[in-house]
Amino acid sequence: MENMFFEPRKEVWKDLIKRPAFDHASLENVVAPILRDVRINGNAAIQKYTAQFDKIKLEELYVSETEIEYAISSIEKPLKNAIELAKENITRFHKTQTENILITETTPGVLCWRKPVAIQNVGLYIPGGTAPLFSTLLMLAIPAQIAGCKNIVVCTPADKEGKIHPAILYTAQLLGLNNIYKIGGVQAIAAMAYGTATISKVNKIFGPGNQFVTAAKQLVNRDGVAIDMPAGPSELAVYADETAVASFVAADLLSQAEHGTDSQVVLVATSKKIILEVKNELTQQLAQLPRMEIARTALGNSHFIVIQDPVTAFHFLNEYAPEHLIIASEAAEVLSLHVINAGSVFLGNYSPEAAGDYASGTNHTLPTNGYATAYSGVSVDSFVKKITFQQISKEGLKNIGPAVEVMAEAEGLDGHKNAITIRLNKL
Amino acid sequence: MENMFFEPRKEVWKDLIKRPAFDHASLENVVAPILRDVRINGNAAIQKYTAQFDKIKLEELYVSETEIEYAISSIEKPLKNAIELAKENITRFHKTQTENILITETTPGVLCWRKPVAIQNVGLYIPGGTAPLFSTLLMLAIPAQIAGCKNIVVCTPADKEGKIHPAILYTAQLLGLNNIYKIGGVQAIAAMAYGTATISKVNKIFGPGNQFVTAAKQLVNRDGVAIDMPAGPSELAVYADETAVASFVAADLLSQAEHGTDSQVVLVATSKKIILEVKNELTQQLAQLPRMEIARTALGNSHFIVIQDPVTAFHFLNEYAPEHLIIASEAAEVLSLHVINAGSVFLGNYSPEAAGDYASGTNHTLPTNGYATAYSGVSVDSFVKKITFQQISKEGLKNIGPAVEVMAEAEGLDGHKNAITIRLNKL
Repeated sequence: MENMFFEPRKEVWKDLIKRPAFDHASLENVVAPILRDVRINGNAAIQKYTAQFDKIKLEELYVSETEIEYAISSIEKPLKNAIELAKENITRFHKTQTENILITETTPGVLCWRKPVAIQNVGLYIPGGTAPLFSTLLMLAIPAQIAGCKNIVVCTPADKEGKIHPAILYTAQLLGLNNIYKIGGVQAIAAMAYGTATISKVNKIFGPGNQFVTAAKQLVNRDGVAIDMPAGPSELAVYADETAVASFVAADLLSQAEHGTDSQVVLVATSKKIILEVKNELTQQLAQLPRMEIARTALGNSHFIVIQDPVTAFHFLNEYAPEHLIIASEAAEVLSLHVINAGSVFLGNYSPEAAGDYASGTNHTLPTNGYATAYSGVSVDSFVKKITFQQISKEGLKNIGPAVEVMAEAEGLDGHKNAITIRLNKL
Repeated sequence: MENMFFEPRKEVWKDLIKRPAFDHASLENVVAPILRDVRINGNAAIQKYTAQFDKIKLEELYVSETEIEYAISSIEKPLKNAIELAKENITRFHKTQTENILITETTPGVLCWRKPVAIQNVGLYIPGGTAPLFSTLLMLAIPAQIAGCKNIVVCTPADKEGKIHPAILYTAQLLGLNNIYKIGGVQAIAAMAYGTATISKVNKIFGPGNQFVTAAKQLVNRDGVAIDMPAGPSELAVYADETAVASFVAADLLSQAEHGTDSQVVLVATSKKIILEVKNELTQQLAQLPRMEIARTALGNSHFIVIQDPVTAFHFLNEYAPEHLIIASEAAEVLSLHVINAGSVFLGNYSPEAAGDYASGTNHTLPTNGYATAYSGVSVDSFVKKITFQQISKEGLKNIGPAVEVMAEAEGLDGHKNAITIRLNKL
């Protein structure tokens, strides 16, 4: 059976965890001139590229009151309730991420503390494409608001009629966001990074996007604008043992595979039997999926791996460092202690990734492409910087000053030493 | 008087907060081929560039036991004691940055939590250049160890005799670090990013460096290696009112200016009188400074600004977003409430930047170049990723499942919906 691997040796793990490579240079050659043009020509350049790439002529970049009112009236009650529930859970979980100031006296008279201060101006990019991702707006705007960001700019591309999906506008008004612009792609990243006559410049840009959007975020990052993280195609790894439910596992793999043809899906199972059962379920469920063709292509690039020993299996999964990891086992809680590298982890047979994508409360903006080895998903932390403060009394300076003098001198930095000496001499 | 500004209008703030621009493209043209060469040819390439740039022929990249023993014996007791004191204070402050796991039940049956897990493999770059920065080794290695990083690789260039400064080696052994390599510059970043036969590949690279090192860090970041932050020349802003001590302020400005000719120094004072007093002190103190020429050049690029209204002054300082901010005032505590953008803040007349550079306990690896608008300095947070977990019971899925179904359907993601439906149907 194709893309099935039985107890792969460590030497081949490298190939199994490999992600698709991107040609940065050629992407940058396309993206950099657009960034430059928007930086210089502002709204005019935005309208030009929106006409060129999105095939729409926008009179106004700003979303009007009328459009928002229409959105509110057009969303059905069940969807409104669902969004409300998601909002509450996301808020509840992210509120636990705020931090109090804790003052530490490291030496008598030397007080040190950190103060989380909101990044003042943030830009949220909500992709258009094949799905209206109002859930991403919840996932980015709620922690931004909890952090206390002052200006929250939202950019999202309009459809061919120049409209933004009403669910996105409904979500925006529910959250009280009112700087929503109908701009997508590279020009949106440029608008938020450099500012235009209409859109105010931001300090940090968040949100997923295609390769061009990602390349644009990386380029503006060099110009002094922070970004949430480098983004790649979405990924799911499932660990399944004999207590997993094959039909659930198949449904979870498909929920990832339907995202895009470049989605990454990996199943690590403790027996070949489990994989065969899951594959059988996949064939049946795939036939009923509206986004069947996308999912089929994504599954074609996926790996089904038998590793009988759980410890080795989690070694492999940590090497892969998946964005999402489902532990489909009744022993999920104990097994989860082996997790070292992952974005978000789902424990047990009743914790599908889809729950975390929308409504459990955790964030769905997560590190892909192996970045889970070093990056966290988006949280309130992503919207603050923690400024350190220190307040040293005369007594405190007497206590640590001589050590600073010695160290500064040893580093050959006499100016540093003198900043201490001149004070100690006055005491 | 040159570079003095009296109540500058908001229109000119933009010019006053401007940092030197770098020519990314030409830096990358130099750096990229070196990265590629080390990636392909490993240690051989490292030795080639070390010979070419550092003019030394290294037999061994690894620091030997003998060298470490020599370092221990050659460091004088006062410096040992000073390093020990700094180590204790840095440890005490950074230990407060660890986080406990807090489980939140967002909806009955839906448990969510975050778990901080150490980044397993980290690389610390300690620059050589004009000062042996053993203090930077303390600032990077201590939080890495508190976070629980498994492999800590240290790269630092050797001098013309092929030796590393004993104070760096002494600090390394004091901390129990034993992967110290005599490699500097772009080749060191490449070695840590890609690994060689001797040096193991890391997940994240930390540490300051010159423009080439910074460009190298940004390039390897695109290849999947995280970096602490983009680095630029060091900066200090001082706010001084009539309760400041002119000689202290001058000493602090010089301690920053001596770092390098590209160091940034800004003084914002509430009166012209203060600036004249500080300038007078600068002239006198500068004449006695060993690194006088460096400091003089840096001061030449600096700004002395009178802003009488404290609120406006802090507006300006927040726009500047300095790496270091000293509030030289007896009202520092109250004034500090205005701080929105800064890396590290020093309150009052007895809190010189030099104290935080070495021994107060706060970290000295801080955002420069205006990045303090969006980035924090290095902390224990920088060495962990926070993995989210969720554990949903059958009851929990009954509670949130229907909302997920509605939202997934509205986003056109039926596979996501089905991952819920297939489970709810079994309950």
